[in-house]
Amino acid sequence: MTRTGLLTDRYELTMLDSFVRDGSAHRPAVFEAFARRLPEGRRYGMLAGLGRLLTAIEEFTFDADEIVWLREEGVIGDETAAWLADFRFRGHIDGYREGELYFPGSPILAVTGTLGECVVLETLVLSILNHDTAIASAAARMVDAAKGRPIIEMGGRRTHERAAVATARAAYLAGFASTSNLAAGRAFGVPTAGTAAHAFTLAHDTEADAFRSQVEALGVGTTLLVDTYDIEQGIRTAVEVAGTGLGAVRIDSGDLAEESHKARALLDSLGATETRIVVTSDLDEFVIAALADAPIDGYGVGTRVATGSGHPTASMVYKLVAIADDEDAPLRPVAKKSKDKASTGGRKHPFREYDGDGLLVAEIVTAQDAPGPGPGAVPVQIPLVRGGTTVHRPSLAEVRAFAASALATLPADARTVAAGPAYLSTTLVEAAAQRPSRDPRKEKAMAQPTRGLIVVDVQNDFVEGGSLGVAGGRDVAGRISRHLAEHAGDYAVVAASRDWHHRDDTNGGHFHEPGEDPDFVTTWPVHCVQGEAGSEYAPELETGAVTHHIVKGMGVPAYSAFEGVSESGERLVDILRDAGVTEVDVTGIATDHCVRATALDAREAGFAVRLLPGLHAGVAPETSAAAIEEMATAGVEVSA
Amino acid sequence: MTRTGLLTDRYELTMLDSFVRDGSAHRPAVFEAFARRLPEGRRYGMLAGLGRLLTAIEEFTFDADEIVWLREEGVIGDETAAWLADFRFRGHIDGYREGELYFPGSPILAVTGTLGECVVLETLVLSILNHDTAIASAAARMVDAAKGRPIIEMGGRRTHERAAVATARAAYLAGFASTSNLAAGRAFGVPTAGTAAHAFTLAHDTEADAFRSQVEALGVGTTLLVDTYDIEQGIRTAVEVAGTGLGAVRIDSGDLAEESHKARALLDSLGATETRIVVTSDLDEFVIAALADAPIDGYGVGTRVATGSGHPTASMVYKLVAIADDEDAPLRPVAKKSKDKASTGGRKHPFREYDGDGLLVAEIVTAQDAPGPGPGAVPVQIPLVRGGTTVHRPSLAEVRAFAASALATLPADARTVAAGPAYLSTTLVEAAAQRPSRDPRKEKAMAQPTRGLIVVDVQNDFVEGGSLGVAGGRDVAGRISRHLAEHAGDYAVVAASRDWHHRDDTNGGHFHEPGEDPDFVTTWPVHCVQGEAGSEYAPELETGAVTHHIVKGMGVPAYSAFEGVSESGERLVDILRDAGVTEVDVTGIATDHCVRATALDAREAGFAVRLLPGLHAGVAPETSAAAIEEMATAGVEVSA
Repeated sequence: MTRTGLLTDRYELTMLDSFVRDGSAHRPAVFEAFARRLPEGRRYGMLAGLGRLLTAIEEFTFDADEIVWLREEGVIGDETAAWLADFRFRGHIDGYREGELYFPGSPILAVTGTLGECVVLETLVLSILNHDTAIASAAARMVDAAKGRPIIEMGGRRTHERAAVATARAAYLAGFASTSNLAAGRAFGVPTAGTAAHAFTLAHDTEADAFRSQVEALGVGTTLLVDTYDIEQGIRTAVEVAGTGLGAVRIDSGDLAEESHKARALLDSLGATETRIVVTSDLDEFVIAALADAPIDGYGVGTRVATGSGHPTASMVYKLVAIADDEDAPLRPVAKKSKDKASTGGRKHPFREYDGDGLLVAEIVTAQDAPGPGPGAVPVQIPLVRGGTTVHRPSLAEVRAFAASALATLPADARTVAAGPAYLSTTLVEAAAQRPSRDPRKEKAMAQPTRGLIVVDVQNDFVEGGSLGVAGGRDVAGRISRHLAEHAGDYAVVAASRDWHHRDDTNGGHFHEPGEDPDFVTTWPVHCVQGEAGSEYAPELETGAVTHHIVKGMGVPAYSAFEGVSESGERLVDILRDAGVTEVDVTGIATDHCVRATALDAREAGFAVRLLPGLHAGVAPETSAAAIEEMATAGVEVSA
Repeated sequence: MTRTGLLTDRYELTMLDSFVRDGSAHRPAVFEAFARRLPEGRRYGMLAGLGRLLTAIEEFTFDADEIVWLREEGVIGDETAAWLADFRFRGHIDGYREGELYFPGSPILAVTGTLGECVVLETLVLSILNHDTAIASAAARMVDAAKGRPIIEMGGRRTHERAAVATARAAYLAGFASTSNLAAGRAFGVPTAGTAAHAFTLAHDTEADAFRSQVEALGVGTTLLVDTYDIEQGIRTAVEVAGTGLGAVRIDSGDLAEESHKARALLDSLGATETRIVVTSDLDEFVIAALADAPIDGYGVGTRVATGSGHPTASMVYKLVAIADDEDAPLRPVAKKSKDKASTGGRKHPFREYDGDGLLVAEIVTAQDAPGPGPGAVPVQIPLVRGGTTVHRPSLAEVRAFAASALATLPADARTVAAGPAYLSTTLVEAAAQRPSRDPRKEKAMAQPTRGLIVVDVQNDFVEGGSLGVAGGRDVAGRISRHLAEHAGDYAVVAASRDWHHRDDTNGGHFHEPGEDPDFVTTWPVHCVQGEAGSEYAPELETGAVTHHIVKGMGVPAYSAFEGVSESGERLVDILRDAGVTEVDVTGIATDHCVRATALDAREAGFAVRLLPGLHAGVAPETSAAAIEEMATAGVEVSA
């Protein structure tokens, strides 16, 4: 079964059934996932499972047989059966990046949509995040303890056969080098490793026979397991059989510090000075740390990583924090008061502050419509799903790199295996609803993401009469001005870009070579030269609301506004992120060139993106239509 | 993916590759699964996962794409690729029943087959058994602590989304009453339970609105969650809304002993004397035991059961214990000597002894060809797979009942939550290979199961000339005699059955009523009357080797020999089990009646069964063919 709908607790669907019956299933709502605490002694947690979760949410549907079964079991009634029949999640999800660190109270995930569609996701969200996060949080500490020596994840035999695959993925993104699990290699591209078990040696008449057979199959670079009978004799036999070019020996028993020292001395005395020593056998972060001075070149970790090193689940919860009375009503915060489990109402917005060395110093969480922190604070959540479509899909390698960069924001003392309190306490800035001086209705029914507007290249050369004039360009400029007049206040950033080319060179082949004609594909007539009239904004564009003027193409071809910089030299992506922007509206000229490139880059950078209808103009209808289709495919909202 | 081939560690396949290359993949071998120790403080473990494992082994295959990928990844070469292409497990598996108790050293599973097909199963065997057994072992203790009050398993949100399904199954077979997990309900028929979370109350304007909505959907028999705001007020509101017929209240926070006492008093004062109190919130066997005197009617257990109550894996291992040099050579025991991980060679045969009260007093494990224990000892392993076909497939309800009966063999002090040593130490009777006075070649290449032979109703009335004479009956009698002459020594039991009807009654309608004709389906001519010539063995049957004479049908219809008893009044099934028989050969008359019924009953009782070709005769060709087909479908080996 790929469908994930039934991987759900019965009460999610009985609640849904009541919501459908009492008419509240369609009410806008926000649920958040967070952990009230870290496991005892842990300084931080590492979020994992997000990639798997977003796929699982796409697959969260119910087929006809399942719905019939749910009816027969008395879980749902007819109305809910109809509701489920064409159900898929169509809401929004924002969250921490996979591989990001989290602390008690960090609002890791915010799920926004109808009450019905949000409530039914609880079990799936928690199963995946709690499991994978427990693994990654333990694995990250083992990676630190190993001080750069590679670790193989080999815990699959100690956990559920499918959990084993997720375990391999989570350990790898946290920094493990590889896994023994083949399914994880196939499904997620995790490098796989492993050579032989004791059974292999036992199955041969002699250890030498076994080693010969393995070297024959896998070459002298292989790892030979030398402790089936006697380690010293095993190492001698291994070098006899494979020669001094033997890749590695593995020791799976005994006092590993002592045995590795003896093994190193013996290997060196036999001339196998480059042969590595790999150890396995009940390792965890504490044992690895204790072996730091031993001549060990790599570790295999099984049971302890697959079971989260004593903490096999991450204790995240998924709570309703806001709800509206109907589609047009404002969201109001809700919170329970159960003893020791009280929750804080309202959608949370987390920010982080770093010191001059890039070390994390604070996590500030604003609730509901509380004011954001100062300009140095970086928003932590990014858009993950918009209207049911996943808009953030990094590769596992990217997640792994991000996780490493996240760990690098912790000081050294938070990265040891020593027990301690959570490195950070999140600072909650209380919701307005709990401060009567503010109007709780300010927050709109759907938790409001922070928006930015980009006005692309509305310049004289790109409107009627310019060197590359686009028909309709002046009309679009006027409509963008009216849009700004009405909506500028909705945007945290209004960035306007301009092509800003050199006069005296081809700008990297962007202008046609003298004596050749432009092909209007990669080479163009001279346009938008710095300081000349053609590069100025078209007069129909009212620029008073523009917060950031971006220039691009100084000596190089540049279509996307994301290739430009502000007057103070900042990149557009940083401007948007620093302002907490998560959603970007794109407008301007030309739909089939620079608007297209800008929108695609905005998606690539992880923003939710809309191409505002009526506020862009293209060179040609066919290429514009193709560009719009391409943007839509990339997840840009292009509805007319 | 239903196929399970890739749910495997890379080293299993690199070992296989070497075995294929060096020609040893076809060598007969025996692997065993066992746990060296129990988790700290546990008195026993409960085996679980077997049903899932046997299905997963049937699905352990590799498709063409997977094989190409394994080639590309350098895991296997061409020869092994070909070997895997049509691979499925075709060997034998014997093991403890699912739900059985185990102790350190208990040989839980014995996998017999070729070295290649046995070695590749390691990861799958251990993943499934380690996970499910960890859950069941924890769950069984919680069930004991609950003293008959039902427990709902609701840990799915704390573990991997697919592990959650297995968790529900394992907890249920160990005695939990139900699960929150819908997929487990659908896949395994585990009863599902659950009504509403705090989000449900929070989503409504008032707690009363929420309760009204739930009662409307689920009736007054439902369970209302009363601790979202204030427990006392919640209970008052619940009874106001639902009336005194309210099914239950759930309390998920606070001091559960105190709150349940207050809740009981309040419910009683409100007249809701039959309303049950269900508690949840970080329960485990210790908390449940501490709540024994509280007025609590049911428990919900989540995190702690899904994580094995501190021991999320069962630490079973899978080891090569015997191997033969080629198909016709004897198995020789093998063992490793690694420090703290030394193993004992040779196929083990476990037996148990009980005292007069049915309490378990000893587990004796004989290794290789060591002599079996005395007659009071009961073999623990049963045949699970024969020639790749699963021959033991109890329903989950049967497994659950068996688990309860297994727990009942422990004394009360081993069934408390108090920490203690393993209740039993298995007693290993050493293998002959380690005692030079015996010939290790005595054990055959394939670990020899203990066999029994049943000769069904070779009686004068059923051979030519008898009142219900079957053509060919005398020939069959002669061939059975020759078979016994050659093979009687291979059988631990040779049982011969006889119909042994009353003269003066219809034997429960088995004989036709006076004045009516027999229909030859359920009514028959008078035959095989006790003490008359027709009931004697046919003279062609040489009965000197018969160890047990079984009679059946004394006043009742009886087709199967399993409906009969021996001269000392023992049932055939007990005779066979007491003798350690795991495989039964069936012969006799008539194929389409009593032979059929006997073979089907033997399968039902868990034996591996062969219908010996040429050694049975039927009344009619069509009905005999149908009977043989039916037997084959039931897993009887019927090859000509």
